[in-house]
Amino acid sequence: LNETVQTFIEMTEKKQFPKIKSELLEMNCTDIAYLLSDIAEEVPEYLPLLFKLLTKELAAQTFVEMDNDLQMVLIKSFNDKELAGILNELYIDDTVDIIEEMPANVVKRIVSNTDSLTRAHINEILKYPKDSAGSIMTIEYVDLKADMTVKDSFAKIRQTGVDKETIYTCYVTDANKVLIGVVSVKDLLLSSYEAKIGDIMETNIIFSVTIEDREEVVTKFKEYGFMALPVVDRENRLVGIVTYDDAMEVMSSESEEDFQKMAAIIPDNVDVPYLKTSSVSLWKSRIPWLMLLMISATITGWIISSFEDALAASIALTAFIPMLMDTGGNCGSQSSVTVIRALSLGDIEFRDILKVLFKEFKVSLLCGVTLAVANFVKIYLVDILLIGTPGVSVEVAFVVCFTLALTIVIAKLIGCSMPILAKRIGLDPAVMASPLITTLVDAISLMIYFLIARSILNL
Amino acid sequence: LNETVQTFIEMTEKKQFPKIKSELLEMNCTDIAYLLSDIAEEVPEYLPLLFKLLTKELAAQTFVEMDNDLQMVLIKSFNDKELAGILNELYIDDTVDIIEEMPANVVKRIVSNTDSLTRAHINEILKYPKDSAGSIMTIEYVDLKADMTVKDSFAKIRQTGVDKETIYTCYVTDANKVLIGVVSVKDLLLSSYEAKIGDIMETNIIFSVTIEDREEVVTKFKEYGFMALPVVDRENRLVGIVTYDDAMEVMSSESEEDFQKMAAIIPDNVDVPYLKTSSVSLWKSRIPWLMLLMISATITGWIISSFEDALAASIALTAFIPMLMDTGGNCGSQSSVTVIRALSLGDIEFRDILKVLFKEFKVSLLCGVTLAVANFVKIYLVDILLIGTPGVSVEVAFVVCFTLALTIVIAKLIGCSMPILAKRIGLDPAVMASPLITTLVDAISLMIYFLIARSILNL
Repeated sequence: LNETVQTFIEMTEKKQFPKIKSELLEMNCTDIAYLLSDIAEEVPEYLPLLFKLLTKELAAQTFVEMDNDLQMVLIKSFNDKELAGILNELYIDDTVDIIEEMPANVVKRIVSNTDSLTRAHINEILKYPKDSAGSIMTIEYVDLKADMTVKDSFAKIRQTGVDKETIYTCYVTDANKVLIGVVSVKDLLLSSYEAKIGDIMETNIIFSVTIEDREEVVTKFKEYGFMALPVVDRENRLVGIVTYDDAMEVMSSESEEDFQKMAAIIPDNVDVPYLKTSSVSLWKSRIPWLMLLMISATITGWIISSFEDALAASIALTAFIPMLMDTGGNCGSQSSVTVIRALSLGDIEFRDILKVLFKEFKVSLLCGVTLAVANFVKIYLVDILLIGTPGVSVEVAFVVCFTLALTIVIAKLIGCSMPILAKRIGLDPAVMASPLITTLVDAISLMIYFLIARSILNL
Repeated sequence: LNETVQTFIEMTEKKQFPKIKSELLEMNCTDIAYLLSDIAEEVPEYLPLLFKLLTKELAAQTFVEMDNDLQMVLIKSFNDKELAGILNELYIDDTVDIIEEMPANVVKRIVSNTDSLTRAHINEILKYPKDSAGSIMTIEYVDLKADMTVKDSFAKIRQTGVDKETIYTCYVTDANKVLIGVVSVKDLLLSSYEAKIGDIMETNIIFSVTIEDREEVVTKFKEYGFMALPVVDRENRLVGIVTYDDAMEVMSSESEEDFQKMAAIIPDNVDVPYLKTSSVSLWKSRIPWLMLLMISATITGWIISSFEDALAASIALTAFIPMLMDTGGNCGSQSSVTVIRALSLGDIEFRDILKVLFKEFKVSLLCGVTLAVANFVKIYLVDILLIGTPGVSVEVAFVVCFTLALTIVIAKLIGCSMPILAKRIGLDPAVMASPLITTLVDAISLMIYFLIARSILNL
């Protein structure tokens, strides 16, 4: 790729614009966007120069594929006529996506350079709540009427289809814009030209409501494998569609956010690639949870402090603290991640909490017994017989292993129930992931450890 | 839903089959699959009874949507003619998916009940490596020739399209089956009937090779927003296509697997919902990593043992171990998760390792200084002035905070470099996620802690 970038920079230096243009027009919009980004990194002022060589349609497609910062550079380099030219070629949902990421002065220029109809549509989509079905839909679709024939429908698609994001699923509405059916182009192609849409349309429609969460939209795509999903308002009037490529994008950014939450990172709004994110903004998204978790970990410290006499009497107990803490944390996060995923896939709900607790209890018993036995054997063979670590006796081994088994049971029960409870009270279950649960499990397991040690070892 | 299940069970008891049939035929295949699963849970013997009421096409679609265990029950209830009837309606990639999950005796029955052409195709797909593009493709697509007109193409689609999984993207091949172009039904619909396919087809084709990893296929879908991606063999001959719904499924199961790996769970092959997974199989997928991590955590224990004299001299040091371990673990997993995602999105590669290390170094300095200062203030105000915890002095606070800052830097450097190195040597970066890094960071941070304590506090 680097060679291509160099070649283009040299051609631009030599002002070989017709040659550059013909080479660019051979390429795919995604690849042009990559190429222009790479060129802009080397010679920023070449970006608008090369971009203006593209045909209107290709320019719009390429524009959508670019990072927000490059889009902003381009918008600033456009005069109003050029900006309007690009905007008129964009699908409305793409324009909305761009507007949502731009600073206010750029938004004003964008909105004032679109025609009044588009502007009305943009405002309509913008007013839906963030992360709702309404905010990710496009209002460009083909709508048909029940009394049209297949032939009429093809005529309508030919006439209006070029501007629609997908023509493959057409929607049938009545006089009040209420959605009454769906028909695919495949059905149209495989029916006779004289057939009535009303007779071939599917009337059992799966749809979303504008205010529905976008995650539910994705779930429907995954369940039913649609190419597009109609979005209706509260009166069942068709107001837009979500296409499969937007659903895919939501899917990948939702799982991205879940990953971040599980690693105690506050998710960013903007999709900036890692190497382009500034250190300060990485710090900002990482420090809040670190700070909170550090403070809550001091509680565990206080628990240790209050058993200092027990520890002083049997200093060997300290050596097992990391193993107990780590295993408890790992067991807790295994359960919480499993349950968080099951919640987000819709496999379990609040009413299943007892079933989940019982299942995790059984699993934790199996894991607890396995690990406790393995650990007992290891302490006996290695620490006692082989090394002869001072202070480590069969009683100590028993205390450690009993604590380990109890910790695992408690960790798994906490790990599986916290996400369900969080969801119940309207919090995001992913926030209840490993770090928070680990901190809680640490405190509880150390308390158990010292209480058991005190009573068994008579400290 | 429960009411619907009850109504259907009652209708079945009363043998009102015509009524049941007409109600089922109104429903969507996904919903029928859910309904039948719920009925099968209550009265298992009703499943084949109700399933046989479906029309051939709907039966096939519903069959694909069911869990493997229900599919197996149904296959056992079919006679050979019924089985062949269903199999002939399935798309080949769905048949392959089913075969891959079934025990050998069932596979034998399935394969012997498909016609010889289908059987040849099934074997062809089955022989591609697991998780390759070839293993997820379907061989059912519409292929056109460059010298056909748009009218010819529509005739071909009408004639063969009903069996194809997607007709919306058609592929143009030459006499040797080499892929030379792509044309969408949208382009066909918007061109004149006399236009030649060779003139309107897109010749700049994005494709996959059969042996490519399925994750790369998904990356292409995400980048280019395709509806289908052609798959070619090493001689550029078209052998199949991957459709967007299969790409979505791969995407969601790949991110599922990443979540599991990050939580120290060995990913399962089969997509069984949580509540239907047996406790023993949950145990099997969780115990190996727990065992490994428990064993490696004992190394941390030995480090503590070897500094027992220092600990005995200043028992207050013990109280800060959980906070140091937890913060180190959290910092490490923040970095590792960020880098693992950036790797899987293609944002960074091995050659960026120095850039990544430098960026994480800067972030870790920011985080380290912030947390160390906050912690110093907390120890001074709370532990020393307010509570007056015995053994906690300004020197101890200094040791703890200095260790904390160093731990954070080391945790972030390990957390960001391990996944990149893992990928370099051909391992899955996700395996290097939080738990393994936590264990490593624990050992290093405790060693630093005691070394610093020894030299500053003269223990």
